[in-house]
Amino acid sequence: MRYSCPQTVQPRPSTHESPGNGDLMRAQAWQWEGLLHISQNRVAVLLLAGGQGTRLGVTYPKGMYDVGLPSHKTLFQLQAERILKLQQLAEKCHGNRCTIPWYIMTSGRTMRSTEEFFAKHRYFGLQKENVVFFQQGMLPAMSFDGKILLEEKSKVSMAPDGNGGLYRALAAWDIVGDMERRGVGCVHVYCVDNILVRVADPRFIGFCVQQGADCCAKVVEKTNPTEPVGVVCRVDGVYQVVEYSEISLATAQRRSPDGRLLFNAGNIANHFFTVPFLRDIVNDLSLLPSVHEPQLQHHVAQKKIPYVDSQGQLIEPDKPNGIKMEKFVFDIFQFAKKFVVYEVLREDEFSPLKNADSQNGKDNPTTARHALMSLHHCWVLNAGGHFIDENGCRLPAIPRTAAHGQPEAVTAGVVDNLKDASDNPIQCEVSPLSSYAGEGLESLVANREFHAPLIIDEHGAHELVKNGL
Amino acid sequence: MRYSCPQTVQPRPSTHESPGNGDLMRAQAWQWEGLLHISQNRVAVLLLAGGQGTRLGVTYPKGMYDVGLPSHKTLFQLQAERILKLQQLAEKCHGNRCTIPWYIMTSGRTMRSTEEFFAKHRYFGLQKENVVFFQQGMLPAMSFDGKILLEEKSKVSMAPDGNGGLYRALAAWDIVGDMERRGVGCVHVYCVDNILVRVADPRFIGFCVQQGADCCAKVVEKTNPTEPVGVVCRVDGVYQVVEYSEISLATAQRRSPDGRLLFNAGNIANHFFTVPFLRDIVNDLSLLPSVHEPQLQHHVAQKKIPYVDSQGQLIEPDKPNGIKMEKFVFDIFQFAKKFVVYEVLREDEFSPLKNADSQNGKDNPTTARHALMSLHHCWVLNAGGHFIDENGCRLPAIPRTAAHGQPEAVTAGVVDNLKDASDNPIQCEVSPLSSYAGEGLESLVANREFHAPLIIDEHGAHELVKNGL
Repeated sequence: MRYSCPQTVQPRPSTHESPGNGDLMRAQAWQWEGLLHISQNRVAVLLLAGGQGTRLGVTYPKGMYDVGLPSHKTLFQLQAERILKLQQLAEKCHGNRCTIPWYIMTSGRTMRSTEEFFAKHRYFGLQKENVVFFQQGMLPAMSFDGKILLEEKSKVSMAPDGNGGLYRALAAWDIVGDMERRGVGCVHVYCVDNILVRVADPRFIGFCVQQGADCCAKVVEKTNPTEPVGVVCRVDGVYQVVEYSEISLATAQRRSPDGRLLFNAGNIANHFFTVPFLRDIVNDLSLLPSVHEPQLQHHVAQKKIPYVDSQGQLIEPDKPNGIKMEKFVFDIFQFAKKFVVYEVLREDEFSPLKNADSQNGKDNPTTARHALMSLHHCWVLNAGGHFIDENGCRLPAIPRTAAHGQPEAVTAGVVDNLKDASDNPIQCEVSPLSSYAGEGLESLVANREFHAPLIIDEHGAHELVKNGL
Repeated sequence: MRYSCPQTVQPRPSTHESPGNGDLMRAQAWQWEGLLHISQNRVAVLLLAGGQGTRLGVTYPKGMYDVGLPSHKTLFQLQAERILKLQQLAEKCHGNRCTIPWYIMTSGRTMRSTEEFFAKHRYFGLQKENVVFFQQGMLPAMSFDGKILLEEKSKVSMAPDGNGGLYRALAAWDIVGDMERRGVGCVHVYCVDNILVRVADPRFIGFCVQQGADCCAKVVEKTNPTEPVGVVCRVDGVYQVVEYSEISLATAQRRSPDGRLLFNAGNIANHFFTVPFLRDIVNDLSLLPSVHEPQLQHHVAQKKIPYVDSQGQLIEPDKPNGIKMEKFVFDIFQFAKKFVVYEVLREDEFSPLKNADSQNGKDNPTTARHALMSLHHCWVLNAGGHFIDENGCRLPAIPRTAAHGQPEAVTAGVVDNLKDASDNPIQCEVSPLSSYAGEGLESLVANREFHAPLIIDEHGAHELVKNGL
């Protein structure tokens, strides 16, 4: 528990933008403002990539994962290309060649393989000096009675200190100093695992700047009370992300008069910070640890931790025997002078990769791949393109047969040919080098008809030959 | 296309109840009213169960499917027990012993196996005479140029005529007459595949009765524009369910000023009809086919249909070669004198079983099982019960480690013991014989602590022995 009085939790931040509230003009103004800041080299992105893909079933960094898109691009590549494209868009809009520096926080477990991967792929077209790697710290694992656990004889079992370790790492690696030397004014911080992430989203940046915010959280609406997502809310007057393990189900189920969940600002680990705000945090951490550090409490997770006992025997416990301590990135929200929240649409911007495909179909490579292809399919339709089937008939955006409420009633002799269509999105992938967020596709697709799979990249729009390529 | 002017589509029905709008008193009044009608033998349920589980990968009726709950109850059994429980609740509330007749529409492919299954299970405790089976019709499959296709030499390839065949079947089997003879005043019509279905939901019935409606659709909020669910809306002044294959993506993506989708009344195939309304429909169908029938147009689906050619050779086409015609249950909404919409929460009432587990994780046995267990887990928590882990610690309603935005950053030596917990709901199943919709559990669970799996049934609350039973 990080707060004593749950009744003082206030659900909806006072400044809150949501998708339906903004009119197009305003959104375009934010976009223009964001691109202006980018064009002046005032925007950086910071990637939290300290995790290994353990739950994903791989031993390498998650960003190196290929979810099986037609292009087989990794998460790192998709993000790199979005940065490249944004630099071009900012230049086109404001006339300045510019750079978005990319800070990548790794951990002891991922540092070397991440750096090697970027070097091998020549930084995906980015300048090497604008991709800055640094490393989060480690904390010892402890038994329930507070003893340090040993991984081997005379080797302490260590775990990365969580994404909240970001701030100590920023200090240790002088990252804020690097930002200041480059003249960067604000940073978009995000997690590696969201395949739809709009890296340095100019609209988001522009919104934050226009609001005069020093700290902003991008959120999606939480619609199911038991969805495992933390929500942004006020606790005792300051902003926090409250995990649902910290409040009761009854609280999570509360609804506003309009039927929405009262606590619905779902945290998707997409944050905006000004560099002066980060400077304050980092300075306070180094000079005055007593000011912030006690408030940046550790979140304790019970774990099964293999250890060597006093006889030097390696024990693999079958139930939790110790704790791992973590801090979270959002633990600094409480120190913001002006905190705002910016809501976006889940289908446009959020599909995290957490699990392997074998696990229940949530947040796995298949859902990530489908989310991206569904979004790109919508982009093509909204730009005036059409998809046609093998008979030349136009495909509906959503196949009818998948509609709930009409269970199939097929005879043994009638094979449901739309089965695949109803369960899989149309295969469509737009390279970030062609479009950052759906813009600029009209000249490539308007009034044209395509067979899936459709790839749109820097060479144009082309259909994949099914058994070729 | 069933309408010529999509611009005349009006999204939100004027009478529309949603979960946040109703205060508790009003909901209780509906419940009381619904139970009153049930206690007076004035409510029937009608199940659409003509479909085989083709996409589910089985050849028997879907209602016979066991999604793998601890009890291994089939969909049919869950529904039967909810009917039994409701009869008891109505009697307890209003003092009359009562019956909810259950009409089950099967098809040529499912009639016999369905009847045998019910007989074998002795109607799951219901009276045999109150379970009435009838059968939907079949229509010939046709080639694109309108020729009847042959399944074998001199055997026409037939397909069930869709759930909209309900009305012809009601007439053919004199089902409305049976309802009238029993004194039934209204019917809850639903599909077999929704594991959470609140059969004859007294709150829904009471709402419809208090509204004086002759036709009502229970809906859930559609939150993603490309979710394949039809939406209830007005078309040219009359209510319809519009499939998303019938309107453009841009229309589907439109949002109200509050950020919600404009077309958001997602059809979940849960309808209320008064018996007089059904009588009118059925009479008009038999006596005046020209009045309604042309408006009850067939919805045409392209299919791959094996057929014998002029040489008598069986051809298995590799692309669609013909059409299957269907009508939908909701095609009669347009004839209602007073049509209303009743919105419920998806997590409480809707989790359809469509696909086998191997397909993408949507609407499959795993999602159905998890939806039911998550709901029952919530029931237990809301009734004051608690779940504890192997160490006796209380489990949070939603495990923290699954929260988005904190990717795991575990060392090789630290196994994430919460992995299962974050992906699977706590195993908890409440028998419908113990609680219809979460009520009445306090005496069994309040202030008690349980290890999962927890089963609550007519013998009380008991934990399953993991490797026993």
